[in-house]
Amino acid sequence: MINKVSIIGFGLIGSSLARAIKNNQLAQTIACGDDSPEVCKKVLDLKLADTATTDLAAAVTGADLVILAVPVGACGKVAKQIAGSLSDGAIVTDVGSVKQTVINAVTPHLPPHVSFVPAHPIAGTEHSGPEAGFAELFNGRWCILTPLAHTPPHAIEKVSALWQACGAQIDIMDPKHHDLVLAITSHLPHLIAYSIVDTAATLEEDTKAEVIKYSASGFRDFTRIAASDPVMWRDIFLNNKEAVLSILQRFTEDLTALQKAIRIGDGGHLQEVFTRTRAIRRAIIDAKQATPTAKGQ
Amino acid sequence: MINKVSIIGFGLIGSSLARAIKNNQLAQTIACGDDSPEVCKKVLDLKLADTATTDLAAAVTGADLVILAVPVGACGKVAKQIAGSLSDGAIVTDVGSVKQTVINAVTPHLPPHVSFVPAHPIAGTEHSGPEAGFAELFNGRWCILTPLAHTPPHAIEKVSALWQACGAQIDIMDPKHHDLVLAITSHLPHLIAYSIVDTAATLEEDTKAEVIKYSASGFRDFTRIAASDPVMWRDIFLNNKEAVLSILQRFTEDLTALQKAIRIGDGGHLQEVFTRTRAIRRAIIDAKQATPTAKGQ
Repeated sequence: MINKVSIIGFGLIGSSLARAIKNNQLAQTIACGDDSPEVCKKVLDLKLADTATTDLAAAVTGADLVILAVPVGACGKVAKQIAGSLSDGAIVTDVGSVKQTVINAVTPHLPPHVSFVPAHPIAGTEHSGPEAGFAELFNGRWCILTPLAHTPPHAIEKVSALWQACGAQIDIMDPKHHDLVLAITSHLPHLIAYSIVDTAATLEEDTKAEVIKYSASGFRDFTRIAASDPVMWRDIFLNNKEAVLSILQRFTEDLTALQKAIRIGDGGHLQEVFTRTRAIRRAIIDAKQATPTAKGQ
Repeated sequence: MINKVSIIGFGLIGSSLARAIKNNQLAQTIACGDDSPEVCKKVLDLKLADTATTDLAAAVTGADLVILAVPVGACGKVAKQIAGSLSDGAIVTDVGSVKQTVINAVTPHLPPHVSFVPAHPIAGTEHSGPEAGFAELFNGRWCILTPLAHTPPHAIEKVSALWQACGAQIDIMDPKHHDLVLAITSHLPHLIAYSIVDTAATLEEDTKAEVIKYSASGFRDFTRIAASDPVMWRDIFLNNKEAVLSILQRFTEDLTALQKAIRIGDGGHLQEVFTRTRAIRRAIIDAKQATPTAKGQ
């Protein structure tokens, strides 16, 4: 299907995609471009790509598909570095969790003979780096494409076909709307998890030891989310500021209402909210986005 | 070991304990007392107890151990109902997630010939009711006892031995301190999860449908916690008001600092916090309270 695919950034997503492309024989050649010499060495050791170099321009030379799999804040810089080396008719795509600022940062650098298909596979774990990836990461997950008005249909089709061959389902969305939906479903939950775990991290040492000891009572679930890659998440919040601050405001209002209900002893309000939230869990299980667990693990 | 054990309230914890007691042959007779005729019928159908009645006073007659496994707000009322039927030398214990208010509510009703051992097994799932329980729920979990100054050592030993035989490890703690530690590790995480899921539940229908569809990106983890029993959790917040409001205040300060960092674009602060929280996850895995997952599921 693809002659040469270049993946820039071999973290969890980049390395998982390389594995999936290799396993499914979707490209003749896989080229790795990564700023870090250690990552390049690891990629060759693990045989995740045919070539690996820290020279990103060299990595994309002759590629018909270039995938930016770096933190969203680095996409513009990488686009600038590789722009002069992109082949005629090459397709550039990305995997970022924010779309509008990536589009704003990338498009000014791309020459007219290149197509850009902004993409976001909704998949991940709390682990980072080329060793953390696995080919099945995208199985049954959504990949949202947010094409521009002038993105040619054949480029959208090619990127769609790649993700479908890696096990994902495709959705097309407006970039601004994508950023709002992800602010609710992903960015705010991560911010909250980081915040509550940091509240615990800054407690006195004695209390912190007890929090770790008794973490299985609820706190533990937050720490898994709050173990996600710090640079990737820093960039997401800096690049989806408006939508995140807006949904955070709404969350704060709802939390303040619960706080007041506790303070004045309004059990009716608490029970009403806690009953409503159960229905959302059932809807997610019905939508096959979660599996009911007998043991709550 | 025990002649007759009476369990009042056959929800997730009560029914799990009955199963563990039965499987490990820890009592001659298991009696169920539950307000709900449906639950009593289900308990007999599932053979979880030898007898089942809605008459709680009758349920405890002749018991050497009585376990209150009702929402914490109901403990005082139940203690009053059963007080006149408790045998000489009977031991009363509970399983509540808040200790000081349960002690305050229960002790005034208990006659002097009875010992009270407040207890809290730190275990649970998001499921409720007698069908949701399972005998292994307490395996490797902590059970915290918060005995009173006058609780006789033999009573503490008997309750400890029961929990150990059900697979739990015992810790002894001051009730106030227990309530503070649990406010951080359990009550606040549940409040936050309920709040964020309710923020989503009250969104416009279109957006709500998308939140459910893309929940796997982080939100899903919160919905599991927010599917926990509404009445049980209503009572926990009403009965641990002071500690919950205090730790909630601290959380709000930390969240506000993150909000400001996003607003002013302070990536350094974000990265610093997100790096610190990773260390907590590692500490929890080292303490064997969580298992590292390759796939982040």
